[in-house]
Amino acid sequence: MSELDLSHWLTPKLRALDAFLESRFEQVWPESFREPLRYPVFGGGKRVRPALVFAAHEACAPAADVAAAVPAAAAVELVHTYSLVHDDLPAMDDDDERRGRPTVHVQFDEATAILVGDALLTEAFGILADGTGTAEQRIAQVQCLARAAGHAGMVGGQVGDIAGGVSDVDALKRVHAAKTGALIRSSCVLGGLAASADPATLESLDAYGTAVGLAFQLADDVLDADEDAGDDGPPSYVSLMGVQRTRALARELVTDALGHLDGLPQPTALRALARFIVDRRS
Amino acid sequence: MSELDLSHWLTPKLRALDAFLESRFEQVWPESFREPLRYPVFGGGKRVRPALVFAAHEACAPAADVAAAVPAAAAVELVHTYSLVHDDLPAMDDDDERRGRPTVHVQFDEATAILVGDALLTEAFGILADGTGTAEQRIAQVQCLARAAGHAGMVGGQVGDIAGGVSDVDALKRVHAAKTGALIRSSCVLGGLAASADPATLESLDAYGTAVGLAFQLADDVLDADEDAGDDGPPSYVSLMGVQRTRALARELVTDALGHLDGLPQPTALRALARFIVDRRS
Repeated sequence: MSELDLSHWLTPKLRALDAFLESRFEQVWPESFREPLRYPVFGGGKRVRPALVFAAHEACAPAADVAAAVPAAAAVELVHTYSLVHDDLPAMDDDDERRGRPTVHVQFDEATAILVGDALLTEAFGILADGTGTAEQRIAQVQCLARAAGHAGMVGGQVGDIAGGVSDVDALKRVHAAKTGALIRSSCVLGGLAASADPATLESLDAYGTAVGLAFQLADDVLDADEDAGDDGPPSYVSLMGVQRTRALARELVTDALGHLDGLPQPTALRALARFIVDRRS
Repeated sequence: MSELDLSHWLTPKLRALDAFLESRFEQVWPESFREPLRYPVFGGGKRVRPALVFAAHEACAPAADVAAAVPAAAAVELVHTYSLVHDDLPAMDDDDERRGRPTVHVQFDEATAILVGDALLTEAFGILADGTGTAEQRIAQVQCLARAAGHAGMVGGQVGDIAGGVSDVDALKRVHAAKTGALIRSSCVLGGLAASADPATLESLDAYGTAVGLAFQLADDVLDADEDAGDDGPPSYVSLMGVQRTRALARELVTDALGHLDGLPQPTALRALARFIVDRRS
């Protein structure tokens, strides 16, 4: 599957995702909260995590209706979005711009940005609970997302990132595995859970997600290094290992990720996504 | 059941709750995040919402093990706690002190307070998903809590509260019904869900919770008015209706709440809590 095919494959799925998200944010009270709440959700995100959910779902159940994976795709995107809204706050990374637009606290105000994040995080769990599939499937999804998003995952990773003091590759890996890796892994597992995958398959998806999550971060660091052409700022894989070794490790991780897909009924999209993640130009 | 008996009834339940919360926050990474995360959870809260969960559970299933209600009790307390941590932030209500101690952002810093809130909210859903009972019971609990905590509930109410412009009792009621009422209602319903209550019983618990939630807010306003002896500040029931009418409405609501308990197997604790909520001195 080429990049072009990947886009062709993904477009109808993202359309279903957007329609679903629209339906969840149709009725918002107070009315004045509707725009701030929708602003970061429909803000031009790449939807990498939903793509992984859809691909993992298809890998396990190629004949199943894509609708079964939409709630999980929406939930991971909302958790990702909430984390960006909070991370951008003045007390955290203090970013004024994201995806070429003012961040939520700049466009509205800080209190609104805090509350938008809180509402999106809560909505993610509501969506999984209201979702498709059996109660067992849905509860497993809530467990999976809570573990990825909470203090053992994203939040802990952000704490570690802010705390600083990272001076070697292993410590950096641990922070990234929690901050960005946990949600990427859980996106893959959630897709599998939506397809009622068996435990061994869920483990393969988890291993694929672990490798892809780290490769994603390495590729990001290489892209950032190309942009900055300097090595000030917090330690990155590039500043600790150099561009060459970072690129080589990303390629190794993709090979590792692909190895976990053998035996899945239809892993074409997962394969294409792993390659896309390290080959992308932005 | 007198106030003394209520305390006697509640003590072993809160001990079970605290032991459970201890177990959930034993292993925290990074280690430096452990203290900030625990600080507001074990900070001398009155545990009113867990008390309602336990009482509603007992009302429906007097012979059942109290352990079945512990996850729901923990979840509502964590959602309440997260909301206080975020509401206290400088961009929101900017409070330096709570329960006689520095607030989280004063004791640690603002970034930590944002992340502590995010982690507690996430943990609440994780606890319900990991909880006791069937998958159906647990998923109904996640749905109930997500609705109460999200933009249709607490978050929306806080948005309305910050936006201001409330000038009559009905508008104030709508803000409070969302900001504080929704979680109190859901505490009662969650207790019922933990006891596998039937839909009619859950409706009764919801109606009881609605009345008690508003009565709680009215009683708070009367206590605040007694303290302040002034009427500056945002509009309250006392500033809009006077102390007499506020007190009278609170008593009416308690009568209304008690009326919804007829037919429940063991509503003694719910009755005592309704009375305690309006009679309390702090």
